[in-house]
Amino acid sequence: MNILAIGDIVGNFGVDYASAKIKKVCGEHNIDFVIANGENSAVGNGITRETAQKIFNSGADVITLGNHAFSKKDVVNLLLNMSVIRPINYPERTVGEGCIIKEKKGKKIAVINAIGRLNLLNVDCPFKTVMRKIRQIKDECDIIIVDFHAEATSEKSALANYLDSYATVVYGTHTHVQTADERILPGGTGFITDIGMTGVTDSVLGVKKDIIIRRFMTQMPERFSLADGKCEMRGAVFKIDDKTNKCTEIVRIRE
Amino acid sequence: MNILAIGDIVGNFGVDYASAKIKKVCGEHNIDFVIANGENSAVGNGITRETAQKIFNSGADVITLGNHAFSKKDVVNLLLNMSVIRPINYPERTVGEGCIIKEKKGKKIAVINAIGRLNLLNVDCPFKTVMRKIRQIKDECDIIIVDFHAEATSEKSALANYLDSYATVVYGTHTHVQTADERILPGGTGFITDIGMTGVTDSVLGVKKDIIIRRFMTQMPERFSLADGKCEMRGAVFKIDDKTNKCTEIVRIRE
Amino acid sequence: MNILAIGDIVGNFGVDYASAKIKKVCGEHNIDFVIANGENSAVGNGITRETAQKIFNSGADVITLGNHAFSKKDVVNLLLNMSVIRPINYPERTVGEGCIIKEKKGKKIAVINAIGRLNLLNVDCPFKTVMRKIRQIKDECDIIIVDFHAEATSEKSALANYLDSYATVVYGTHTHVQTADERILPGGTGFITDIGMTGVTDSVLGVKKDIIIRRFMTQMPERFSLADGKCEMRGAVFKIDDKTNKCTEIVRIRE
Amino acid sequence: MNILAIGDIVGNFGVDYASAKIKKVCGEHNIDFVIANGENSAVGNGITRETAQKIFNSGADVITLGNHAFSKKDVVNLLLNMSVIRPINYPERTVGEGCIIKEKKGKKIAVINAIGRLNLLNVDCPFKTVMRKIRQIKDECDIIIVDFHAEATSEKSALANYLDSYATVVYGTHTHVQTADERILPGGTGFITDIGMTGVTDSVLGVKKDIIIRRFMTQMPERFSLADGKCEMRGAVFKIDDKTNKCTEIVRIRE
Ligand SMILES: [Fe+2]
Ligand SMILES: [Fe+2]
Ligand SMILES: [Fe+2]
Ligand SMILES: [Fe+2]
Ligand SMILES: [Fe+2]
Ligand SMILES: [Fe+2]
Ligand SMILES: [Fe+2]
Ligand SMILES: [Fe+2]
Repeated sequence: MNILAIGDIVGNFGVDYASAKIKKVCGEHNIDFVIANGENSAVGNGITRETAQKIFNSGADVITLGNHAFSKKDVVNLLLNMSVIRPINYPERTVGEGCIIKEKKGKKIAVINAIGRLNLLNVDCPFKTVMRKIRQIKDECDIIIVDFHAEATSEKSALANYLDSYATVVYGTHTHVQTADERILPGGTGFITDIGMTGVTDSVLGVKKDIIIRRFMTQMPERFSLADGKCEMRGAVFKIDDKTNKCTEIVRIRE
Repeated sequence: MNILAIGDIVGNFGVDYASAKIKKVCGEHNIDFVIANGENSAVGNGITRETAQKIFNSGADVITLGNHAFSKKDVVNLLLNMSVIRPINYPERTVGEGCIIKEKKGKKIAVINAIGRLNLLNVDCPFKTVMRKIRQIKDECDIIIVDFHAEATSEKSALANYLDSYATVVYGTHTHVQTADERILPGGTGFITDIGMTGVTDSVLGVKKDIIIRRFMTQMPERFSLADGKCEMRGAVFKIDDKTNKCTEIVRIRE
Repeated sequence: MNILAIGDIVGNFGVDYASAKIKKVCGEHNIDFVIANGENSAVGNGITRETAQKIFNSGADVITLGNHAFSKKDVVNLLLNMSVIRPINYPERTVGEGCIIKEKKGKKIAVINAIGRLNLLNVDCPFKTVMRKIRQIKDECDIIIVDFHAEATSEKSALANYLDSYATVVYGTHTHVQTADERILPGGTGFITDIGMTGVTDSVLGVKKDIIIRRFMTQMPERFSLADGKCEMRGAVFKIDDKTNKCTEIVRIRE
Repeated sequence: MNILAIGDIVGNFGVDYASAKIKKVCGEHNIDFVIANGENSAVGNGITRETAQKIFNSGADVITLGNHAFSKKDVVNLLLNMSVIRPINYPERTVGEGCIIKEKKGKKIAVINAIGRLNLLNVDCPFKTVMRKIRQIKDECDIIIVDFHAEATSEKSALANYLDSYATVVYGTHTHVQTADERILPGGTGFITDIGMTGVTDSVLGVKKDIIIRRFMTQMPERFSLADGKCEMRGAVFKIDDKTNKCTEIVRIRE
């Protein structure tokens, strides 16, 4: 079982680019299951019915989100009616789910989306919330994948190590920069701090360079405007052994 | 001219490990100049005479620092008497320098250390401070290397793009996780968001996993204690064209 | 029923000063019940057996804490054996309690300690945690007092308004500066954003002025050292109607 | 010389309310000079030509701003053409001035606006920037008033103590909650941590209570909407001795 995870897809350019490249990677890497982070797919962040539809059409089985999950109102409908999940540690009663279980090739695959608290959002403890969910679903699932949307490398590494042997894979999103630290933790969980972004390369995290530079230098408010130009799709392929259901290899994707 | 930069060296294990590996990499990659980040080399962060001496003995030409620069008192002496620099955008009159110029193989190489403000330290603007220094030294230098010690990927990318064509190379440190985004920016500056850490792999950023997990989960104060076990050295080799003095290639190091 | 609450007592000077002044205020204001915040009573923050004992000897019925609750190890014993509580929204299984119920003059008085998350600690939601506790105890209590230890005026005001009509009084601590906004909210809950500090006046929040000024200006680490000199005790008297058990008046204390 | 300072005026309700009350207070307290903080006077924060005009018509001599200074585009015109100043420690080349000198009753009064960095904005050091300006103007001014727009009580107290004897008065704004700690510092500078807000009382800092409570509890984005209802004007009167030009008394205003 080969699972492809795609990092934060940014704007129309990112959505369109992912469309072509997901199919290519699926062919080349014999992919069975695709998870894509869609929190920045809409103009000005968030996700809309249109961007979600395009991402699903590109081959995604599940869309995960992050701190921008609720920027657009469409998201409520998507969370209720499509395979779109939001961070599980938003407070109870938040619309939608933070975990989804799908079947592929005879395997039950759970995808959990969680979000960090350090310099990010004042939500419930991701450590406890994710572990509780894993305890609840582990008997009915073969594979458990966690997209941890977080800022600090310390929090991401800590959660992955906490879930080591409980989750099949823990990967990070949010920083929009792919890390080169993929490894199998001692307990067998596959981990990479961040799988990166899908969007325009000549930019600051997908946004026009000049705007972000000015914001840092002047501290003036200024609306973001997406960069255009050549794109890159970043993500990772997690190879899962069909007998042990363990992650045996992580291949970083750069297309 | 091949320049090797080594990411945050953590504790005794990291210092000793770097000692062997820097030499190995220098041999294999034909390195002419070595910069190492030493802000976590001492027990409990910071740098001491002893760890600095060991790092220089390992082959470092310059040691850079970061937010832990002033954790140990020894640093004052090191800043005044050795090739150790601290972030240049600490306020004026801070002891030591944030830029050093060394000659190697007939080339004048400037190393500038800077630090980010987003979720880090309330210091002077890194954008203006570094640009001012570059303007001041550019006529007497052939190569300008910037170690930007910062937390947020946005700030790191913004500074690199701001310095594009002014600096030869901008690389990041501080997150202790190497990124896989090395590239030559449109203006010719080599950039990688973070070159990673030198220390124990089975850890959270070099620290014992259990301690960091507990701190996140319980919010209790607890003193850090370094992990032990197998180490890894991360860094990057920047290949500089001898005619143009431009960065032509970046090779991530993992030893 | 007149309840006196005393703001963060800082160091030996604060502890000794409070000792004399609590008695004076109790006499003058006909006080029946005293709550004191002891999170900074020990040297270098936190609380010890000795400072707790002194504060109880001064007339305190309950000691509340805050973000420095666990700075000293003694606190575990105090939480288990004395009328010392810590913020209730520390994660489950944290040693000690966040609520205590005491009887005075035939009234059952609950004291709840909570802590804010904005720019402070990544703990459980104070809104939900406190409301859940109030729901649980309200039938057996006549009076419910909440010490909300938080940084942001917005979070403090929001919690007080959320608890309006459920709590008898919500008062803030942590900023060490008494606010002049005491009022009875529309639902009948008495509220003041911060009751202030008990410690040396000619200081920055109880600490030597020069140290704090230097830290802001230089961004250098430097150990805190308490100021000495003339003290002031700040707090508030909450007058509770014996028939309705509602707060009818708040009198700021400055001694 | 009696100087009246008015805290953050929030929205139309605040602007209209201030209009009537400033005149009343001026009469009762024999006020010679009025400074008002207008950073929240426009709908959705910031300041417009219309709200600035109304505040000046109410009797203000100078309008200060804060972190919301640049939320509305009108501000550029106001900074260039009216007695409106913005925090002086915005980076160099920021439009407008951070200091203005006006003459009243034969006295030259300088008003300086500054902003804090702790949990607020990554700008230049307020300590150095304000002190440099004071050194520059002190010979031509009789009275120097500083509006320090900042979040943390520690930073506010530190700046005031740093400027003690250099500034006539340092008062804080931004938290929208008046503090009860007005005092004359040892060097003679009058200081109060925050002079409070002018706006609707039954609110959270001027905004509808339910919105802010929901934002804290759900972590969902939601646009602010101003509260309506009864207003209160908060501020302070600084009495300046005509011979010594020193602050002799601070009277908190609540109208
Ligand atoms: Fe994102
Ligand atoms: Fe994000
Ligand atoms: Fe660092
Ligand atoms: Fe480090
Ligand atoms: Fe405190
Ligand atoms: Fe505190
Ligand atoms: Fe404001
Ligand atoms: Fe403000």
